[in-house]
Amino acid sequence: VTARAAVLVTGTEVLTGRVADRNGPWMAEQLRVHGVDIASVTVVGDRPDDLRTALRVLTGSGVDVVFTSGGLGPTADDLTAEIVAEVQGRPLRFDPGVHETVAAIVARLNATRGWHLDPAATDAATRKQAMVPVGGTALAPVGTAPGLIVPVAEGRAGPPVIVLPGPPRELQGMWDAALASPLVAAALANREEVRQRTLRLWGTPESELAAVLRRLGRALDPLEITTCLRLGGELEIVSRFPPDAQAAYDQFAAAIGESFPATLFSPDGRTIDDIVADLLLAGHLTIATTESCTAGLLAGRIADRPGSSEYLLGGLVTYSNEAKSALADVPASLIARVGAVSAEVAQAMAAGARKKLGTDLGVGITGIAGPGGGTPDKPVGLVYLHVSGPDGAERARRAVFPGSRADVRAGAVYLALQMVRQVLQAR
Amino acid sequence: VTARAAVLVTGTEVLTGRVADRNGPWMAEQLRVHGVDIASVTVVGDRPDDLRTALRVLTGSGVDVVFTSGGLGPTADDLTAEIVAEVQGRPLRFDPGVHETVAAIVARLNATRGWHLDPAATDAATRKQAMVPVGGTALAPVGTAPGLIVPVAEGRAGPPVIVLPGPPRELQGMWDAALASPLVAAALANREEVRQRTLRLWGTPESELAAVLRRLGRALDPLEITTCLRLGGELEIVSRFPPDAQAAYDQFAAAIGESFPATLFSPDGRTIDDIVADLLLAGHLTIATTESCTAGLLAGRIADRPGSSEYLLGGLVTYSNEAKSALADVPASLIARVGAVSAEVAQAMAAGARKKLGTDLGVGITGIAGPGGGTPDKPVGLVYLHVSGPDGAERARRAVFPGSRADVRAGAVYLALQMVRQVLQAR
Repeated sequence: VTARAAVLVTGTEVLTGRVADRNGPWMAEQLRVHGVDIASVTVVGDRPDDLRTALRVLTGSGVDVVFTSGGLGPTADDLTAEIVAEVQGRPLRFDPGVHETVAAIVARLNATRGWHLDPAATDAATRKQAMVPVGGTALAPVGTAPGLIVPVAEGRAGPPVIVLPGPPRELQGMWDAALASPLVAAALANREEVRQRTLRLWGTPESELAAVLRRLGRALDPLEITTCLRLGGELEIVSRFPPDAQAAYDQFAAAIGESFPATLFSPDGRTIDDIVADLLLAGHLTIATTESCTAGLLAGRIADRPGSSEYLLGGLVTYSNEAKSALADVPASLIARVGAVSAEVAQAMAAGARKKLGTDLGVGITGIAGPGGGTPDKPVGLVYLHVSGPDGAERARRAVFPGSRADVRAGAVYLALQMVRQVLQAR
Repeated sequence: VTARAAVLVTGTEVLTGRVADRNGPWMAEQLRVHGVDIASVTVVGDRPDDLRTALRVLTGSGVDVVFTSGGLGPTADDLTAEIVAEVQGRPLRFDPGVHETVAAIVARLNATRGWHLDPAATDAATRKQAMVPVGGTALAPVGTAPGLIVPVAEGRAGPPVIVLPGPPRELQGMWDAALASPLVAAALANREEVRQRTLRLWGTPESELAAVLRRLGRALDPLEITTCLRLGGELEIVSRFPPDAQAAYDQFAAAIGESFPATLFSPDGRTIDDIVADLLLAGHLTIATTESCTAGLLAGRIADRPGSSEYLLGGLVTYSNEAKSALADVPASLIARVGAVSAEVAQAMAAGARKKLGTDLGVGITGIAGPGGGTPDKPVGLVYLHVSGPDGAERARRAVFPGSRADVRAGAVYLALQMVRQVLQAR
């Protein structure tokens, strides 16, 4: 058996969706890489009863370690240290050494920012953050809040609870120290390598994949396979398996390749973003965009990758018709004749991006993201996309995306990346 | 007491962070609006044991209803219906009516897409999706998967489980029907209005706020207050309270206004995006951007709002130095003299956006998002921002953002919006 962990994320702002939880998934992935299996991620609000109940359930669920994130700040709704101490049977005690560390950090931070704060308020806040459960260990702060490693009380059985701060940068900065602590290392000693491999299809429905999986039957038993239909119609197949099932995985991957040769665009798990970046780099090619309904999201996404300045020279956001003409040289007469949302205008936008930025590839996107602006002829969700490449390579698509304004725009960005891939791979 | 609900999100892709959970927070917010309190959101993978354990814990936790999302697809790792039926003690039975509905939807979908699929594969998939627990009710599909309402077996005590699909569009489309079903309506009958109000500060540290909260003491008892430090340094204060605590809330809000008059930029909960949009609309003003390190993310974010074409005319993504000169008229000699990441270039970029798009406001952003490219003088995270407004209004900032490439870029976009607000409010 593999070591197992549970994650408890605290914060009413996360529970109610005002802040997206980035810590649960990040910890899950880190633990997987370390060969630790994750049982669940639970989110509760900043309420003592809910926090206490969740901690009791998780510490009693048979996992080897429980990680918490959040609730270590200076305000009264930050309760995690207190409740963990209570559930683990380890009363809190003021730790002068931790207090000194936190106070020094806060003083330095305030000086850097030029803030002159009420000393009594600052001291009350740092004292609250310097409470450590008896028999527990503090982890050095990355921001201002220390983390905590809290074993269960002597004579009781149960996993240690590792208390980490909510801001992802602070949690991630404290992670290695948490895993290196003797208590956590001992709890997670029972590790087993778990391999994870991903295949990505585009253009195959889930039902077709299900049929192939059924046909393969028992041959898949050594693999834990999960499939997921992602935005844009990408079908992601993730397999997790122990090292001795590598041959079973290789057979499975080969079977998928044979069944879906035209739609398996990523046999090695690379995302569409990875593939487009690699193709541009390998071909020493440059790219530029002209975006209307997506208004910069495609350029912004291409620039998500470090080093993207090698191939992304820039882009035009032509939200108004005037901008389409002034920036991307789309003839006003063309817009008047066929409308701004049309195949012709998308093509002219792609050509304008190439010309204005002097790139090898140009992408044009124009559509109706909604919720208003639709007509019977041109409904909400209608998007025209065009990619112009070197040597006269062209690719044009008309698509109607379902869902919200955000769904339509994200779907268009994804489709544009697939079209760029197709143009680059056709070379 | 208010009615309480728990949410169970299933899917290894969510647990491992490959897909962000949008359903848990959405359901939490919907339930709150309906006066139903949410106890927790739990995420488990597509593993029968973990799903079963979580369902047992949640149905036994004293909540009035449990909602699940995900795991209703046609592949074998989609297990939710089966496990819910087992835990509720209601065996699955093939439902010919549901089968007919699903088959008709799938046939129509395949025809629209021009897909010619293996009929046996399609039928196996639709038959799996037509299994309904005895005594349960199917909810009409929005995509292809029907939802389920599953009461606990006769003679046993426990909440009903409402089984909803994973794709947010499908779940949201099925939501009203789920809440309207007699079983759910009865379970959630015990409702009480919960009001929620939000205050937003920018430039106040959490410790200062904590001091004011301590000073107000018992006067805050009728309110459930949570504070959250958001990206960009925004301090969000959310208060939840029953209607009879309105006076207590009003006093609290007034005290915050008196304590932090300069930093309380949103006394009514509007986001910085709301406020910028409202100010632009009220002033009949237009805006354009020139972005380097953010590469379109600011324009894309302004365009997130329906109706943003009233004020966003367009933008320039000038990722390369050549693009800064060619598109935004930043003199090459200036870039050579002070560098592309400089206050002077940010100012020239803002001016270029205004001039090229003929807008009232222009925003320029140039910086080093990292992880590479930093120098001792100009470290990773350094960003210069400039906003030029009507009548010679200007605002310039130099900031160094901590964190990842994504953190730096998101921080810069947030700061730019605050600067646009300041220029607009100074008018």
